[in-house]
Amino acid sequence: MNLPLVGLKDERSTIRIGDTTIGAREVVLMAGPCAVESGEQMRAAAQGVKAAGGKILRGGVYKPRTSPYSFQGLGEEGIDYLREAAAEYGLLTVTEVMDERSLDVLVDKVDILQVGSRNMQNFHLLKLLGEVRNPVILKRGLAATVEEWLAAAEYILAGGNAQVILCERGIRTFEPSTRNTLDLSAVSLVKVLSHLPVIVDPSHAAGRVDIIPALAKAAVAVGADGLLIEVHPHPEEAQSDGMQSLTPEQFARLAAELRPIAQSVGRSMAHSPKA
Amino acid sequence: MNLPLVGLKDERSTIRIGDTTIGAREVVLMAGPCAVESGEQMRAAAQGVKAAGGKILRGGVYKPRTSPYSFQGLGEEGIDYLREAAAEYGLLTVTEVMDERSLDVLVDKVDILQVGSRNMQNFHLLKLLGEVRNPVILKRGLAATVEEWLAAAEYILAGGNAQVILCERGIRTFEPSTRNTLDLSAVSLVKVLSHLPVIVDPSHAAGRVDIIPALAKAAVAVGADGLLIEVHPHPEEAQSDGMQSLTPEQFARLAAELRPIAQSVGRSMAHSPKA
Amino acid sequence: MNLPLVGLKDERSTIRIGDTTIGAREVVLMAGPCAVESGEQMRAAAQGVKAAGGKILRGGVYKPRTSPYSFQGLGEEGIDYLREAAAEYGLLTVTEVMDERSLDVLVDKVDILQVGSRNMQNFHLLKLLGEVRNPVILKRGLAATVEEWLAAAEYILAGGNAQVILCERGIRTFEPSTRNTLDLSAVSLVKVLSHLPVIVDPSHAAGRVDIIPALAKAAVAVGADGLLIEVHPHPEEAQSDGMQSLTPEQFARLAAELRPIAQSVGRSMAHSPKA
Amino acid sequence: MNLPLVGLKDERSTIRIGDTTIGAREVVLMAGPCAVESGEQMRAAAQGVKAAGGKILRGGVYKPRTSPYSFQGLGEEGIDYLREAAAEYGLLTVTEVMDERSLDVLVDKVDILQVGSRNMQNFHLLKLLGEVRNPVILKRGLAATVEEWLAAAEYILAGGNAQVILCERGIRTFEPSTRNTLDLSAVSLVKVLSHLPVIVDPSHAAGRVDIIPALAKAAVAVGADGLLIEVHPHPEEAQSDGMQSLTPEQFARLAAELRPIAQSVGRSMAHSPKA
Repeated sequence: MNLPLVGLKDERSTIRIGDTTIGAREVVLMAGPCAVESGEQMRAAAQGVKAAGGKILRGGVYKPRTSPYSFQGLGEEGIDYLREAAAEYGLLTVTEVMDERSLDVLVDKVDILQVGSRNMQNFHLLKLLGEVRNPVILKRGLAATVEEWLAAAEYILAGGNAQVILCERGIRTFEPSTRNTLDLSAVSLVKVLSHLPVIVDPSHAAGRVDIIPALAKAAVAVGADGLLIEVHPHPEEAQSDGMQSLTPEQFARLAAELRPIAQSVGRSMAHSPKA
Repeated sequence: MNLPLVGLKDERSTIRIGDTTIGAREVVLMAGPCAVESGEQMRAAAQGVKAAGGKILRGGVYKPRTSPYSFQGLGEEGIDYLREAAAEYGLLTVTEVMDERSLDVLVDKVDILQVGSRNMQNFHLLKLLGEVRNPVILKRGLAATVEEWLAAAEYILAGGNAQVILCERGIRTFEPSTRNTLDLSAVSLVKVLSHLPVIVDPSHAAGRVDIIPALAKAAVAVGADGLLIEVHPHPEEAQSDGMQSLTPEQFARLAAELRPIAQSVGRSMAHSPKA
Repeated sequence: MNLPLVGLKDERSTIRIGDTTIGAREVVLMAGPCAVESGEQMRAAAQGVKAAGGKILRGGVYKPRTSPYSFQGLGEEGIDYLREAAAEYGLLTVTEVMDERSLDVLVDKVDILQVGSRNMQNFHLLKLLGEVRNPVILKRGLAATVEEWLAAAEYILAGGNAQVILCERGIRTFEPSTRNTLDLSAVSLVKVLSHLPVIVDPSHAAGRVDIIPALAKAAVAVGADGLLIEVHPHPEEAQSDGMQSLTPEQFARLAAELRPIAQSVGRSMAHSPKA
Repeated sequence: MNLPLVGLKDERSTIRIGDTTIGAREVVLMAGPCAVESGEQMRAAAQGVKAAGGKILRGGVYKPRTSPYSFQGLGEEGIDYLREAAAEYGLLTVTEVMDERSLDVLVDKVDILQVGSRNMQNFHLLKLLGEVRNPVILKRGLAATVEEWLAAAEYILAGGNAQVILCERGIRTFEPSTRNTLDLSAVSLVKVLSHLPVIVDPSHAAGRVDIIPALAKAAVAVGADGLLIEVHPHPEEAQSDGMQSLTPEQFARLAAELRPIAQSVGRSMAHSPKA
């Protein structure tokens, strides 16, 4: 494989969006439900994200689903719910882009575009994202090597968009007791091999609420620049991924527990606005 | 996961293209180079494929490459080389489609469209392929379960295109001595779980010429409806995958060795036209 | 890693036991239940193995079990059932050896000693097996590379016992629909890299009866020197592995179907004694 | 599988050895070279371990090696070097036991016995360890599920030895840039599923020095009760695993960096004796 060229530089990249900078001293919290379901749901989620010191509201409107008969997301209607809730609480937005059509819709409406694991080597989509100015979260493919992941990022960088945020979300292994196996070595490795910021999604990795807090702590300790966490006001009613969604209360508690760890590794985390 | 609905029916599906039927008694040979490089190369390959009893000429013109700096294929120029060589030797054509743009170009120019491993869950592309009338070879993703593979096929079937041919091409495991691990259990399983034809690509699985013939034999014995094999007139000069390409002579010898195995499992294979 | 030294030689090794030779032209069938349960069971199994042209009767008396609370095998009582049934039908015997104690018991009572997957790198046991004169079937560890497997064989060879038979039985991957993923590339590779005979156990690989016959055919086509297959007179009553055990009738039918495949690849298979 | 019975109880187990308790509030550091090579080497290692606040000196004297032609350890001579160095610096000792013979030698000479990954399902050895009174570190097999790992522990517990310490050391995946993939989810899971203490070996997992400190921090953050780290006075001269060994200076720096993380998760770590 050719070595990443644009991807090589001496200083670390930081990505500034509004008042928030990813890849600098602060560990940034991004959270929200797997799928946008209603305006009410998104407002409750946004309130919880904000209250915990989170900066970015997530919520899927176009959902990549294994089966064509599963819920495919609310589409454009969902974008409004995401944007309105984020605006009300002063949060930035991130959602998944799946193809050219959804990119056209999303590019001017959300702050950060996310490429899901299944699309990590959708080179057509990567090239299109090289031409936009939104920051891009590039999730690692579920069987992608670190080298392939960095090469995928290079497609976006080579297209002219330098704002790539890598996201480790678990790889596929033989172990059945978690949905995926979170690979924190990879987080540390991309810090060595690349200048790009890297965040961790412990929710998709674990697939079960009980170990998400511990994995989030480990992610901060290993050096992640941010966390992407599923938070749903009513996980038991979620249309997808309910069993891996924290409640706003659990998320607030976790955020409080993460702060001293961030400080222990020379980082900071935003405080709750009330604090 | 929802169960595949369109994918469930009682009799096995067969796919007829010109004089060739995939999924019936005959085991169909598809071969050619990884990448179309020149008219001369494709004519030599086509001659070799035809001489061995092959029915379908393969050759990539749009190449999905891990790195943006690797050779990306000849594009439209390559399509002509593929078509002309196939026409000269009375072969059908198959090439990989990567996105909407390449689909628009290829849909009227090649017989069979191939979805590569990296795109197995590119749902936008799968939906587009549900709307065309070309048969589609759907390669298994390199870490896709059999269930996910069948669900991906269901996206095409649900869109209205019933002509889906599954292709096992090796999965990603810990074993470093082959490029991928050919999973022939999966071939047998999709025969149990689905009515769709399934072929095997031993070339990408092995990544090394020395064991491709043995794997091809095993694929026929396990019940594959066809083989997709890399054949290059000059493997040592190939722009990609040279070390896993058979010469036309090696391919002819292999085809001759496969015939009695096909007969042993109640199948047939076309004879060389000279024979 | 150091390269295997004793393991390198020019001609292929053959292993002669009584009238049977492993690694020569004949593909040898070895079959029987996972666990020896009773004299009656073993006689019925032996009759079925013999009737299908099998040469070697298998049956576990010391069972390596994931949990200490699972059935651990009949021990010495089982050895008698295995030997008596084999003697009555003129078959050789193979059973698993787990440690020094079981080796002491088995060494003079069974023909072939088997090392299970979990013990592939139990170097103490391998060294002990280097000092005996029984042929040894060395199963591949469930996450062992081909190189590690050959190096494990080298422990036995270096100890002075040249009669090592490799056995591929499936590796651990992400795929949940089979118990393990049968890696037939590995069978082909050890033929390239080593002079040792290699057999295939499709029963443990598949873990389900419906695809075992197809995998057995593929194993013969890829070049295996023998097959190790679970056969139980009453699979529904088996104390372990019932769902992957063929009945004697299914085994006889499979044996008949394997013969023409063996011939197609230049091998032979023994006929049923009545035929 | 049968559920672990002895392994289920309400309160967490703690294991007391001399002044050190594993599984209580303190995160315990265990360190030393992969292989014992000389008295001088072990004294230098012990000095470094002690100076950093470590409590337990590790060093292999019987080495399980993939190839029979690799260095197999110093054997009994090495035990003396390990014991003398530990005694001089007031450290406990841990070394790997491979079989009955090495167990007989080690049982009265070292404090803690370690079962390596390759032997996690060496049931004979596990049963023998159920009969001794030394605490046992049970490393997870490189392709063992969490359930299998706990069931292996159950063999020791069921035999009457309640002092089992689990050790996660990386699992085998497709990723080639680390030796193994450290699975910190598993650490969190065994805290949920079991009462046993669990430690982490980031050195074998990573196989490269540059990311070991980050992984060690993540391990403490995720809740590990201790760390097992390779430290060698002269890594460049080590007979095995040099590229994954920290120097005593690197180890001391790491220990200092781990303390605030331990405190952040409600744990403590011993200070350097000079501090």
